[in-house]
Amino acid sequence: MKLNDDQLARFERDGYLFFPSLFSGQEMDVLRARLPSIYAQQRPQIVRERGTHAVRTVFAAHLIDEAFAKLGRHPRMIEPVAQFFGEPVYMHQYKINGKQAFDGDVWQWHQDYGTWKADDDMPHERAMNVAVFLDEVNEFNGPLLFIPGSHRLGAIEASHDLTTTSYPLWTIDNETICRLVARGGIVAPKGPPGSMLMFHSCLVHGSPSNMSPWNRTIVYLSLCAVSNHIRRFKRPEWIAHRDFTPIVALPDDCLTDPAIRITELPLAPAA
Amino acid sequence: MKLNDDQLARFERDGYLFFPSLFSGQEMDVLRARLPSIYAQQRPQIVRERGTHAVRTVFAAHLIDEAFAKLGRHPRMIEPVAQFFGEPVYMHQYKINGKQAFDGDVWQWHQDYGTWKADDDMPHERAMNVAVFLDEVNEFNGPLLFIPGSHRLGAIEASHDLTTTSYPLWTIDNETICRLVARGGIVAPKGPPGSMLMFHSCLVHGSPSNMSPWNRTIVYLSLCAVSNHIRRFKRPEWIAHRDFTPIVALPDDCLTDPAIRITELPLAPAA
Repeated sequence: MKLNDDQLARFERDGYLFFPSLFSGQEMDVLRARLPSIYAQQRPQIVRERGTHAVRTVFAAHLIDEAFAKLGRHPRMIEPVAQFFGEPVYMHQYKINGKQAFDGDVWQWHQDYGTWKADDDMPHERAMNVAVFLDEVNEFNGPLLFIPGSHRLGAIEASHDLTTTSYPLWTIDNETICRLVARGGIVAPKGPPGSMLMFHSCLVHGSPSNMSPWNRTIVYLSLCAVSNHIRRFKRPEWIAHRDFTPIVALPDDCLTDPAIRITELPLAPAA
Repeated sequence: MKLNDDQLARFERDGYLFFPSLFSGQEMDVLRARLPSIYAQQRPQIVRERGTHAVRTVFAAHLIDEAFAKLGRHPRMIEPVAQFFGEPVYMHQYKINGKQAFDGDVWQWHQDYGTWKADDDMPHERAMNVAVFLDEVNEFNGPLLFIPGSHRLGAIEASHDLTTTSYPLWTIDNETICRLVARGGIVAPKGPPGSMLMFHSCLVHGSPSNMSPWNRTIVYLSLCAVSNHIRRFKRPEWIAHRDFTPIVALPDDCLTDPAIRITELPLAPAA
């Protein structure tokens, strides 16, 4: 999978690319089937929504579960980003965002690079999110909202919001959002399970709460150019990884071929 | 304005009718211009969102402000409902729901008749909401969500939610919502300012929070057949009105004709 000139130009302009149905329904079934056993675990990597047992985020799922480990080395996710940066990438952060039916809470407007710079001392914006939809994402279940073109401003001043949700976040003030939206509008890429998004680490984004009866599970790989690895180790290792080893992609059919195994899972529960 | 057979059949099936751009932009400008002076008042009729000064609801705005009083007697809102019930209607409830940019909070899944029956002892479902959009309603600013066909179940068991938002509401449990949505889906009527919705008092509805930079002001008239007036006066008079006088509609151009006056405004602030 290689990005063409048209895609690179659109990424430059908008700050994101959308690939509807890049993965098959069968591939997503393999991952979705793993969620109940992961969600049932009580561990610090799993953040619940305020006041409920609903899962907000599972950090480091690629170190907990083999299917998610394979996704973390999937060529359709790794190769376009390595191509974009012109060098190998490592896994800076890996998360499953549950945004569960009825209970999934808001993610306020923010940039990811803001946090990576402030908390982790990541030198440059040479890191990128790649996200895959495990469930259909529609207008009702809390889609990801982007402000197109907002990545071109670089890192914007942010303030640390410790109260709105169960997870602290560096968020952007309302006046700035008004200005950015007046210029770029808002888009909400929607599509069936298996759709993939690539988006710039400075793209301003957020997502509303989910009051629908449909889960909206999205898996995020935050891939960083190896030369751009973080310098400060303030946050837990399972939030901001310290293993800067270049990711070697697996074969394209890794999710559905049971012969392809990853046995080294440092955070897997005891069998 | 008279509902035709096709519209009546669709209302029977879906529980709502949508009239995009029924009012002009100019008519909505007249109303929207009144909001700052209403919102600036400190009074029990104005409910703020939790933790902010943002307006969640203005009750009884037709008793506070002349332009909103005219809207409360507008033939495009009154006549279709009187036609539907085959008798005159009175104003059971009147509210401006602010759903303000960034701060507008969720309205959980509910039926209005559940509250009117439980709190106000309204005998039958012979009351109806008519809503007009003062702002554009889009997928990002907290549109009203309907479960089509859910009105055909009549009043559904509900529980009194006193904690989720700043306003207590009789809400419907998640299992019931799952079952209703599996059958009827969810729709979110969207459109420019001046669009109007009529919906059945048993139609299950709600609306998500508004994290966009756009206000989403909707005015709701809850019109009740005169013969069906409430029997219990437990809630404040400005939430559940006790004046069962039939509404006499004004001329169609009442919003923009300054010669048409309503001088009797019992809750208007002293000049």
